[in-house]
Amino acid sequence: MTGPVELLPVPGLPEIGPGDRLGELIAAAAELRDGDVVVIAQKIVSKAEGRQRRLADVAPSPRARELAAGLDKDPRLVELILGETRAIVRDERVLIVETASGLVCANAGIDSSNVPGADEVLLLPADPDNSARRLRAEIAAASGCRVAVIVADSFGRPWRIGQTDVAIGCAGIDPLDDWRGRSDRDGRQLVATEIALADELAAAADLVRDKAAGVPVTVARGRSDLVTAADGPGAAALRRDRADDLFR
Amino acid sequence: MTGPVELLPVPGLPEIGPGDRLGELIAAAAELRDGDVVVIAQKIVSKAEGRQRRLADVAPSPRARELAAGLDKDPRLVELILGETRAIVRDERVLIVETASGLVCANAGIDSSNVPGADEVLLLPADPDNSARRLRAEIAAASGCRVAVIVADSFGRPWRIGQTDVAIGCAGIDPLDDWRGRSDRDGRQLVATEIALADELAAAADLVRDKAAGVPVTVARGRSDLVTAADGPGAAALRRDRADDLFR
Repeated sequence: MTGPVELLPVPGLPEIGPGDRLGELIAAAAELRDGDVVVIAQKIVSKAEGRQRRLADVAPSPRARELAAGLDKDPRLVELILGETRAIVRDERVLIVETASGLVCANAGIDSSNVPGADEVLLLPADPDNSARRLRAEIAAASGCRVAVIVADSFGRPWRIGQTDVAIGCAGIDPLDDWRGRSDRDGRQLVATEIALADELAAAADLVRDKAAGVPVTVARGRSDLVTAADGPGAAALRRDRADDLFR
Repeated sequence: MTGPVELLPVPGLPEIGPGDRLGELIAAAAELRDGDVVVIAQKIVSKAEGRQRRLADVAPSPRARELAAGLDKDPRLVELILGETRAIVRDERVLIVETASGLVCANAGIDSSNVPGADEVLLLPADPDNSARRLRAEIAAASGCRVAVIVADSFGRPWRIGQTDVAIGCAGIDPLDDWRGRSDRDGRQLVATEIALADELAAAADLVRDKAAGVPVTVARGRSDLVTAADGPGAAALRRDRADDLFR
């Protein structure tokens, strides 16, 4: 049986900028223990990785102008979105794409809130699983603790209103808990149950992260059973193949 | 700023059957406080509400037989699914429907695991928001505590592998935290951010709920700011209208 889990906000991080050693800053701000799951908002990961872009520097292509007109968006923003895009999923009312790293989300995850400078937007990390692995190594080196790292972002969903945080990258945790083939307590096989634990941890972490106050890191404590020695498959394991997806 | 949140599993509930006063049983098993959010797995709510069905009692219609053949499912199960269905969303490989209560999910949420009796399946509560309101009133009467109640179930998602728990019913909490029009700390308006807090609470609760051990109730403690005097709009507020949905 699982015991209690604590969700602990990590206050006291400085404003993050390009080149900052984010893992070291987190290790200094948090009182980490072995087995903690450190959930980090995508925004500060992107900021540390220099993923800010100025719209003034962007020259939109004819394709971006055409899409932007239909969507009532800034063509320079659409140009940046297309630069992150492997395939367009929907371009009616909202622009939902599959990113180069395989995430399906609105506007390729490009965000214009919480970014200083009215003209500036923030791209997702280029490879969020790689970000998670690097942050995990930095945290381990700085703290001596074996933790898991999840990079989280807020995504919308079909069918349901509102966004929830999901894991766009992870390291040191298997993002899926696969119950298929295991039995329930009546001995019946649980045939179709794979739990997206990394997404549930990302969502849980958001419960203590006040967007206005700027507390971008949460520690989830109490599921050290989930933290693995190896970095593991990353959040890539959560991405449904296009061929298996009925909604692309 | 938000403080820590604790997720506390509630052990010690008896096996639940039709007619059980589930709210009273939960109040007796949990050490509740004002401001707790009580997250209850759909299965025990359905069991208490007598939503068990025996496949042997079901006579499948021609339409159910036809769909079942294409989906390699038991036609009697498909008949039960159709009985809960307002509209079919997909019937290719999996059967995804909009239920009478407005949820979009596979198989109308009908589940065959954790139900005693090889022939027995379990329907969703007929009106999960009503279930949540009733359970909240029962818990308040038995414990004297003002809590919120969320009825949670595991749903799959387009684009992402694995299920996460979502709120199919709730009472005493506004399921959406609407940041639209509010400003971030740089004074920029957060235009598109509505957070599905009830879904994030449901997902968080699942982190301490061991499916094999049968611990179907979690208390989330630390967000008493979310618990309202009124029952509120329920999880119905999370259901995207068909006209606004690009994926139906």
